Amino acid sequence: MAKDQKKQPRPKAETPKGFRDYFGADVTERKQMLDRIAQIYHRHGFEPLETSAVETVEALGKFLPDVDRPNAGVFAWQEAEVPGGGAGDWLALRYDLTAPLARVAAQFRGDLPSPYRRYAMGPVWRNEKPGPGRFRQFYQCDADTVGSASVAADAEICAMLAAALEHAGIRRGDYLIRINNRKVLNGILESMGVAEGKPADDVLRTIDKFDKVGEQGVRQLLTTGRKDESGAFIEGVGLSPEQAEPVLAFLTSKGADNAGTLANLRAAVGASATGAEGVEELAQIARMLAAMGVGEERAIVDPSIVRGLGYYTGPVFEAELTFEILDDKGRKRQFGSVAGGGRYDGLVERFTGQKVPATGVSIGVDRLLAALRAKGLMGGTEQGPVVVTVMDRERMADYQAMAAELRAAGIRAEVYLGNPKNFGNQLKYADKRNAPVAIIQGGDEAARGVVQVKDLVLGAKIAAEASHEEWKAQPAQTEVARADLVAEVRRILG
Amino acid sequence: MAKDQKKQPRPKAETPKGFRDYFGADVTERKQMLDRIAQIYHRHGFEPLETSAVETVEALGKFLPDVDRPNAGVFAWQEAEVPGGGAGDWLALRYDLTAPLARVAAQFRGDLPSPYRRYAMGPVWRNEKPGPGRFRQFYQCDADTVGSASVAADAEICAMLAAALEHAGIRRGDYLIRINNRKVLNGILESMGVAEGKPADDVLRTIDKFDKVGEQGVRQLLTTGRKDESGAFIEGVGLSPEQAEPVLAFLTSKGADNAGTLANLRAAVGASATGAEGVEELAQIARMLAAMGVGEERAIVDPSIVRGLGYYTGPVFEAELTFEILDDKGRKRQFGSVAGGGRYDGLVERFTGQKVPATGVSIGVDRLLAALRAKGLMGGTEQGPVVVTVMDRERMADYQAMAAELRAAGIRAEVYLGNPKNFGNQLKYADKRNAPVAIIQGGDEAARGVVQVKDLVLGAKIAAEASHEEWKAQPAQTEVARADLVAEVRRILG
Repeated sequence: MAKDQKKQPRPKAETPKGFRDYFGADVTERKQMLDRIAQIYHRHGFEPLETSAVETVEALGKFLPDVDRPNAGVFAWQEAEVPGGGAGDWLALRYDLTAPLARVAAQFRGDLPSPYRRYAMGPVWRNEKPGPGRFRQFYQCDADTVGSASVAADAEICAMLAAALEHAGIRRGDYLIRINNRKVLNGILESMGVAEGKPADDVLRTIDKFDKVGEQGVRQLLTTGRKDESGAFIEGVGLSPEQAEPVLAFLTSKGADNAGTLANLRAAVGASATGAEGVEELAQIARMLAAMGVGEERAIVDPSIVRGLGYYTGPVFEAELTFEILDDKGRKRQFGSVAGGGRYDGLVERFTGQKVPATGVSIGVDRLLAALRAKGLMGGTEQGPVVVTVMDRERMADYQAMAAELRAAGIRAEVYLGNPKNFGNQLKYADKRNAPVAIIQGGDEAARGVVQVKDLVLGAKIAAEASHEEWKAQPAQTEVARADLVAEVRRILG
Repeated sequence: MAKDQKKQPRPKAETPKGFRDYFGADVTERKQMLDRIAQIYHRHGFEPLETSAVETVEALGKFLPDVDRPNAGVFAWQEAEVPGGGAGDWLALRYDLTAPLARVAAQFRGDLPSPYRRYAMGPVWRNEKPGPGRFRQFYQCDADTVGSASVAADAEICAMLAAALEHAGIRRGDYLIRINNRKVLNGILESMGVAEGKPADDVLRTIDKFDKVGEQGVRQLLTTGRKDESGAFIEGVGLSPEQAEPVLAFLTSKGADNAGTLANLRAAVGASATGAEGVEELAQIARMLAAMGVGEERAIVDPSIVRGLGYYTGPVFEAELTFEILDDKGRKRQFGSVAGGGRYDGLVERFTGQKVPATGVSIGVDRLLAALRAKGLMGGTEQGPVVVTVMDRERMADYQAMAAELRAAGIRAEVYLGNPKNFGNQLKYADKRNAPVAIIQGGDEAARGVVQVKDLVLGAKIAAEASHEEWKAQPAQTEVARADLVAEVRRILG
C-alpha cells in the first residue's frame, strides 16, 4: 500500500474548472448583504426555506429553462442499484431555487399556509462552460408568494424589492423598478389576430431584442426582416405593418408618469378584454405601490421592459441600478439590472396537475454585491486582528493573556503563532493580516511592567510620508503600562 | 410534444432519500447559532473561508477516512469528455470541510498568511445509507490553524471553543472540554516496546472502547481477550500484562485537578522522551488556558478521552455537555459530545510532500442545536407576522398601507393575500402563521376612521379558559382610531 502510494503522482491542488473559493471579506460582505435582504423579507411576512442541494432529476424536470437536452446544464449522477434490483434514482444539484420551491409547494401543499410566502438564499449549480467571471456555482436570492392570484402579491413583491435594495445599501434614486404585464401584450396579440403558440412566441422572441435594436429594428423584424450590423439578413416574423404597429405602440407607450403610461396602454390595447384586464392590473399595482409609500421614482410602470415577458404570465418586474460605472474599457455605462421577477402559473402543475398562481423576484447576488462595491459601500480591505507578537517563546502564556484581555473587551486579537525567531516575519505577518496594531513585550518591558503598542496604520502612513528623522522618532509606537494595554489599543482603534 | 407529455406520469414531489427541507425557525435558529459562533471565531483572528461544494475526486482523496473503497461514501460523477479527446475529471461533493481546507492550504500556500487561521461553516454530503435522524446532507462548523507547530495554537482553539459554546448559549458549568495528547500514549507504547504500525494501531483501536467496556474490559482486550455481553469472544491484542498496565495507567491517570493528572502522567510515561514531551505539552496547554482565564471547570486535562487518538498526532480535545436530558425512553442521560478536534500533520502533505502542522476543532452543528433546544434556549415556535385581514377587496391599497406603516415601525406585518371571501379562512391562516395580532377593517370601520385590533395570543388564552360570557365580551379585540393602529399593535406586542 505504502509502496503503491509512492508511485502515484501527487494530486493537483486545484478547484474543478469553473469553481472558486471565497476568502475573508468576500464571504462576510455577501453574508452581510444577504442578511440585510433577509431582514426585509422576514419583516414582510416571508418565511425562510432551505432545501437540500440535491434533488431527483425527476423533480427538477430534467432540464434548465430553454434547454431541451436531458441533463444538459445540470450536474447529475445515478444512485447505486436498489438492493433487491431496480435502477437507482438519478440525482442532480439544483440549478435554481424555483424548481425546489415547486417541489416543496407540491410535497407539503397540505401543511403549508396558503398563500405561502417564502424566501431562499443559497448556492445553485450549472453544468455549463465556465468563462471569465462565469462560475458553475453561484448564489441566488429569491422571494416568492405561492397561492395568491391577487396583484396585491405582485405589488407587495415590488415594494419589498425596493425596501430590500435600500436596506442592502442602494440609495433611493440609484435604482428604479420597472413594471410591465404580459397580459397587456397578450391582449394586443389577440386583437391583432396573432395566434397563440409559434406565431405569438415569434413576436415575443422579437420584442426581446427591443433593448438592442430599438423601435425601428423591432418594426423590421416583426414584418419583413432586417440586415444586422454584420450585414447578415435576419428574416422577419411576417406580420403586416398594421399588425406590427400595436406591438410597437405597446413597447413605446411609456408616458411622463404612470397616469400617462396607463392612458397610452388603454389606447394601445383597443377592444381586447385581456388587454384591458392587463392594464387594469398595472393600474392597481400602481395604486397599491402609492398606498405603500413607494413613489414612481422607485417603482414605475414601463412597457419597454421586455425581459421575461416570454416566461411570465402576468406582471413582470425588473430592478435597474441607474448610476453610472466605468466598464472594462473605461467607458461610462449604466450599471443595469440587478433583480427581476414576475408572475407564473405553472409552478406546481407539473406535480399535481393543478395550476397554482405564484409571483416572485430573484436578486442577482453577485451583481448587487458588485454594485455595492462600485459605490464604495463595500469592498474595503477588512481590518485584521490586533497581533500580539512573541519576543520570548517561554512567555507564550503572558502573550495569550494579553490577547484574551483584548478579546474580552470586544477587540479582535490574536497571538502570533508562527516561529517567533525572526521578529521581522512577525511584522510582515501583521501587515499581511492588515492588523491595525501590534503589541510588543520583550523581557526588558516585562520586567518593567510595560508593553509597546505599535499603531500600524499610522506607522505605514509615516513610512510613506515622513523623513528619516521623523521615522526614527517612532511616533507610531507608544510604551504604556501593562495594565493600560486595552485602553491604549482602544484609543488607537478610535 | 404536448401529446407525449400527457402520457408521461407526473413526477413525484419528493426529496431524494436521506435529504430534507428546513422551514422557518429551523433555518433561522441554526443561522443564529452559527452567526454567534462565527463572531467568536472572528474575534480570535480567524478568517472565513467558503470553498465550493464540488471538488475533484483527486483533490478529495477519493475516500472518507476509514473507507477503502474508492468513491464509496461520496457523491461523485464524471465530467463530459474534454473536447479534442481525453476523459473528463471525476468530481464529487465535499464530505467534510477539512479536505477542502487541505486543498486550499496547498493551492494558495504562497498567498495565505502563515499561520493561516480559518473557519468554515456549511453543508457537506455523505453518500451513505440514510436512517432515522441520519441525513446525507448536514452542516459542519470548523475552525483550524494551519502552519503552527506551537501548542499555543491548540490552547487557543480550546479557549475559543469554550467561548463559542458560551456565546451560542451554553452556560458555564454545562460543558467541559477535555484534553488529551496522542504523544503521551506514543511514549508509553514506545517504552513498552510496542512497534508502530499494526501493533500500535491494535492498541489504539482497543482503547477506543474504553468508554464502552471500562478499565477491566480494556485490560482483557489488550491481553488475552474478552467475552462480550452476547457471549461472543473477542480476541485480545496479545500484550503481556506488564505491557498492558502502563496503557491502563495512562487511561486512568485523571487526578483531582490538572496538577494531579500531570503528576500521574509523568509517572505513567516513565523514561520515554516522547511521553515526557507529550506531558509537557499538556502542562503548557493547561498553563496557557489559565492565563487566558479559562479555568479547569471549563477545560481540563483528561487522559480518558480516547476518541480521535488514532487519527490525531498530538493534543486531542472533546467538548461534552454535562447536563442531563431524557432520552427516547424517558431515561436520564448526559447530553454528551458536541465538538471535537486535535492536531494533525498530514493535511497538506498529500499535495506538496511537505508536512504542515495543523490543529482544529469541529462543532457538531445539529447536536449543539439539539442541546440548545433541550435547554429551552431555542425552538419555541417563532412568532408570525401581524396579519392585516381583507374585508373589502376593493380596498386592498388601504390594507397594504396599514401593513407598510407597521413595517416602517419595525413590526413584521403582511396583508392576507388569499381569496378574502371566507373571513374564517383568514383567521385560520393567521393562526397557522402564529400571528400575534390580526387587523380588521370593514366598510363601517373605514367610514368611521377606526380599525379593530385583535390580540390573537390573548384571544387563544381566553378561548381556552374563559366562560362563554367572558368570551362574548371579546376583551381580546379593541377598536382604535386608524391613526393609532401602530401604537396599539406596539402595546399588544409589548
